[in-house]
Amino acid sequence: MIIVLKPRISRKEEQAVLKEIRKLGYIPHVMRGVARTVIGAIGDELTHANLETLVTQFPRAVESVTPIQKRYKLISREAHPANSTIRVREHVIGGKQFHVMAGPCSVESEKQLLQTAEAVKAAGATFLRGGAFKPRTSPYEFQGLGEKGLKLLDKARRVTGLAVITELLSENHAEMVAEYTDIIQIGARNSQNFQLLIAAAKTGKPVLLKRGLSMKIEEWLLAGEYVLANENPNLLFCERGIRTFETYTRNTLDLSTIPIIKRESHCPIVIDPSQGAGRADLVAAMCKGAVAMGADALLIEVHPNPAEAWSDGAQQMSFDMFAKLMKELKPFITAAGRE
Amino acid sequence: MIIVLKPRISRKEEQAVLKEIRKLGYIPHVMRGVARTVIGAIGDELTHANLETLVTQFPRAVESVTPIQKRYKLISREAHPANSTIRVREHVIGGKQFHVMAGPCSVESEKQLLQTAEAVKAAGATFLRGGAFKPRTSPYEFQGLGEKGLKLLDKARRVTGLAVITELLSENHAEMVAEYTDIIQIGARNSQNFQLLIAAAKTGKPVLLKRGLSMKIEEWLLAGEYVLANENPNLLFCERGIRTFETYTRNTLDLSTIPIIKRESHCPIVIDPSQGAGRADLVAAMCKGAVAMGADALLIEVHPNPAEAWSDGAQQMSFDMFAKLMKELKPFITAAGRE
Amino acid sequence: MIIVLKPRISRKEEQAVLKEIRKLGYIPHVMRGVARTVIGAIGDELTHANLETLVTQFPRAVESVTPIQKRYKLISREAHPANSTIRVREHVIGGKQFHVMAGPCSVESEKQLLQTAEAVKAAGATFLRGGAFKPRTSPYEFQGLGEKGLKLLDKARRVTGLAVITELLSENHAEMVAEYTDIIQIGARNSQNFQLLIAAAKTGKPVLLKRGLSMKIEEWLLAGEYVLANENPNLLFCERGIRTFETYTRNTLDLSTIPIIKRESHCPIVIDPSQGAGRADLVAAMCKGAVAMGADALLIEVHPNPAEAWSDGAQQMSFDMFAKLMKELKPFITAAGRE
Amino acid sequence: MIIVLKPRISRKEEQAVLKEIRKLGYIPHVMRGVARTVIGAIGDELTHANLETLVTQFPRAVESVTPIQKRYKLISREAHPANSTIRVREHVIGGKQFHVMAGPCSVESEKQLLQTAEAVKAAGATFLRGGAFKPRTSPYEFQGLGEKGLKLLDKARRVTGLAVITELLSENHAEMVAEYTDIIQIGARNSQNFQLLIAAAKTGKPVLLKRGLSMKIEEWLLAGEYVLANENPNLLFCERGIRTFETYTRNTLDLSTIPIIKRESHCPIVIDPSQGAGRADLVAAMCKGAVAMGADALLIEVHPNPAEAWSDGAQQMSFDMFAKLMKELKPFITAAGRE
Repeated sequence: MIIVLKPRISRKEEQAVLKEIRKLGYIPHVMRGVARTVIGAIGDELTHANLETLVTQFPRAVESVTPIQKRYKLISREAHPANSTIRVREHVIGGKQFHVMAGPCSVESEKQLLQTAEAVKAAGATFLRGGAFKPRTSPYEFQGLGEKGLKLLDKARRVTGLAVITELLSENHAEMVAEYTDIIQIGARNSQNFQLLIAAAKTGKPVLLKRGLSMKIEEWLLAGEYVLANENPNLLFCERGIRTFETYTRNTLDLSTIPIIKRESHCPIVIDPSQGAGRADLVAAMCKGAVAMGADALLIEVHPNPAEAWSDGAQQMSFDMFAKLMKELKPFITAAGRE
Repeated sequence: MIIVLKPRISRKEEQAVLKEIRKLGYIPHVMRGVARTVIGAIGDELTHANLETLVTQFPRAVESVTPIQKRYKLISREAHPANSTIRVREHVIGGKQFHVMAGPCSVESEKQLLQTAEAVKAAGATFLRGGAFKPRTSPYEFQGLGEKGLKLLDKARRVTGLAVITELLSENHAEMVAEYTDIIQIGARNSQNFQLLIAAAKTGKPVLLKRGLSMKIEEWLLAGEYVLANENPNLLFCERGIRTFETYTRNTLDLSTIPIIKRESHCPIVIDPSQGAGRADLVAAMCKGAVAMGADALLIEVHPNPAEAWSDGAQQMSFDMFAKLMKELKPFITAAGRE
Repeated sequence: MIIVLKPRISRKEEQAVLKEIRKLGYIPHVMRGVARTVIGAIGDELTHANLETLVTQFPRAVESVTPIQKRYKLISREAHPANSTIRVREHVIGGKQFHVMAGPCSVESEKQLLQTAEAVKAAGATFLRGGAFKPRTSPYEFQGLGEKGLKLLDKARRVTGLAVITELLSENHAEMVAEYTDIIQIGARNSQNFQLLIAAAKTGKPVLLKRGLSMKIEEWLLAGEYVLANENPNLLFCERGIRTFETYTRNTLDLSTIPIIKRESHCPIVIDPSQGAGRADLVAAMCKGAVAMGADALLIEVHPNPAEAWSDGAQQMSFDMFAKLMKELKPFITAAGRE
Repeated sequence: MIIVLKPRISRKEEQAVLKEIRKLGYIPHVMRGVARTVIGAIGDELTHANLETLVTQFPRAVESVTPIQKRYKLISREAHPANSTIRVREHVIGGKQFHVMAGPCSVESEKQLLQTAEAVKAAGATFLRGGAFKPRTSPYEFQGLGEKGLKLLDKARRVTGLAVITELLSENHAEMVAEYTDIIQIGARNSQNFQLLIAAAKTGKPVLLKRGLSMKIEEWLLAGEYVLANENPNLLFCERGIRTFETYTRNTLDLSTIPIIKRESHCPIVIDPSQGAGRADLVAAMCKGAVAMGADALLIEVHPNPAEAWSDGAQQMSFDMFAKLMKELKPFITAAGRE
């Protein structure tokens, strides 16, 4: 920790601060600068008390306290310099192969799901997405088909050979969801529901962790650390837009997360432009950007008839739009050195 | 719903839009304005499909779709014009009496908790707060004493007569937490963990719902609606700061929520300036503002020795600071017409 | 500056960093910690190069660079421990006396302005506000009466004895505006228009600096520093709401700026709840909060007939609302130890 | 305008609202829905009063007022369905040719500028950027060489044949800056300094308008409208990152502006990833994304020795990094159908 002292404090005040630092287990190291005195407190920040309380405890003497260690370990690029790859059925995510995960926002019926699965497979997707449990802002909105939806996903998987990804909403459903899906998705609203993260990790299935609406990069990495610390090495990050002042789009898709996650961690990163844009007609451009910037996969909402979708219709693509997009993406996938 | 059409579209396109509106169960009502044609779609928006997909479905014809009904019902001032009051043991929150809920961020030991309880009671608090289950950004930080912490809260309640408020983190702990506490707190990170909200509601205990870090007022009201819709009328809203671009404070305490929640809903509102400021030395001014603006209660972090707290030390007040604050608040409580 | 090195770098890389630090004029001071090596670079940060480029220059060796000196001087509480007071005609702002500055958003006509001036004076205001030059988001909206508006403000001042505050929009109008007003207002959109700040400072009139919509506290203090550094000691800060994700109100009024500005600087702080709320019916509660938290003055929009205002009608108070508010504020002003 | 009435209001109250709407020049059109009555107020919103004051004037009767017309005209895609192209010397921006504008943050010396100009030209840039007037957060930071800097830009232009873009900071310098530059840049801090926009427009030179740190898309379009409304059709939008809660990068580069600006307006869009990222090592990925998403040009900071730059060193690229980037961009430019 770095402790910056205020100018013109007495030696006695300085001694009191040094004493408290030692009491909390650090070895203080004093540097006298031109305008300020700075104390380096040497000790392992992950196992010792946080010194930030010094600001409150010595309001006349201490100006600021700054931790210097990174708070995440297993998830960091330092811990695992190579890219992690995640094997799901016959697919590998995070390697040379680029993946598209596509399907409806909600599973609504067998017909809707199978039609969509066939259509996205034909266009080149390798994963089928679809929500069986839906977190809805209002208690009066459609909450998903539950286990019936999971069974339909399983059926679509058997029929088409697509791998499946679906969201987990409740700790109590972790076993059940894991039985039917290939990747467990943790949604943005639950991105710091640590009990749910632990329950998902313990199933052993790969976990795709969406970024919370106002989650800082460091918090996202630490939420991912919960999965790795519970002995599940298969984590995928998924950017889906953050909340900003802008109201033109539902969220602001932060594509800079692609190089940042690659730099800070070894895990794959997936981009969900459907949630980010909130409107299907902007999704295509965002997909191209994500591919060019080095994303490992895309998560795209596709529906047989978006206007009649039971949830989030405005952001779902029709089959035609999706097939057209997949064609347009090809030269960018090649330019990015992917397949 | 109000559908605004783009200028200069053909009659044929307009007819297609009208047909789709009818198909989805609304009666369209056309108004031709100076620069735009507007369609009012008449029908109950809470039971019919959302028309927002028209923007995607008819990209050349439809400019925007705006819902006009409020999405919340039971929580709204319209549904219950008088203020709701919540009876907790011998106290009533939301009436003339002003309440202060105080205690440590985390329950750490019997000594720490009982000392704090006695001190805050002596200074005038009526509720003891303290976390037994702590949601921590990092998996390596102290996660709370769990049930042992709940038992200590119960003991402090018996010894001092203070009512107790503590946080619920897991659906599976709802029964256990309800056994030991008078109010169940749902934290900011779980403010849209709807499964947890439902589990808390079903215990029958009053629920204090903190605002999520990037939660819009409407979303907060709808999250509260989950509690009322699960037959628990005793909801308290708690503002604790939102996430903005500012880094001087940990969060930006949005005191305008006090008149807004009073206007939109009938439920009491509690202000938590400790989380909002992230530093104890700013808390006092914020408490005064909250009282003056009409808050029903304050939630304040107090610790025997903030520098040695196991979590969030920088924002906890010492006993002396708290006692001083309680004295300073009195004239403002009187000016606000409270006791 | 504090430079944190990455773990496991070679001595040679470390030497290269140290050499560069010396080259840029600092004396490096190395501290070897448990998990990281930290370098304190000793030297005056205000006169030497910023070392933040080391992150880019030595991407494998340098993890982060943190400045430790505050970047503002004259505006800081350290430079001037007592509160500054600003004398404007017979009034003193920043002392025991609490002030209310009230008037229309825009000066529209002699009748409108004089009526309003009489009404706000009768209710207890000491300053008349009113825009003669209006910065409007759209080029098609009313841009103010210009010099004619200034002359009307001057007339209202002579008739009522109220002091006057009005906005400066163009460097070329600084002399003209200074001739007619007692305080020059710099609006939120121009809060980092440094040429305008310098022009305002040079008139010698007190300058009220509104916080920009997304201005951090440090940037606001530094913008104020531009005024003091141009030999004008009479600066007032004015919080008027920041831009956040919330859409219920036009902006989020950040009342925590009151204790923060008091802590970091010696200048008075004024709260403008009209701009912050964007709706008159929330203004009253916000005024009470501002008074309780220690603001030195309020800036309130009042109009004879808000519905017919030429700009921002929704946020202007009628005479009756304003007179009622002034009465309600009294007990809070007393509780805050003001007059 | 669409006026939504509150439920259960009396006919008398409704009549009063209708009367006021007529008084303000609109023809009201009443629609009775299931849960609400809605009034369409027919009339040209650009020339009539804004009805938003009805919310304040009739607080018991009016729930909300929503404008339906877009507030911008000349800048809109409706006004000019084809893409606008801007001719600068021998270059055309907004057409098939993709452009890179590169150079130092600040012009520091003849040697620094000429070296950079030669280097960026050799790597494929067509424009030279460089600040002669610098808006600096602190009054104690380097403010630019002023006219001397402009003369150096002019010299570099003559020597290399590159076109020049530089920032205008003061209305009073508009003529001078226009004399030496090919495109006038308006910086983020001055994006709503309307006097400066008008002065820039009147020079007749193309204007590149950076997005303000917290500027909504609509406000940006309206600021651009100030240029077109002052009879200068040559406007370029430039996204350079918005301010969000994230602190990992200096700003959050919002690449979704590319399809949005293309959809709403006919003007070219330029991406400035240097300002957006605030660190050169993330710039490359962002450039690729911008190209893939359809940007018309990039604005990139390049410096002979970033560590010794007089401003913003951390975000400037070295010559080697820039040359490498230009090579890497080629396949993406081709994939995007550009040259």
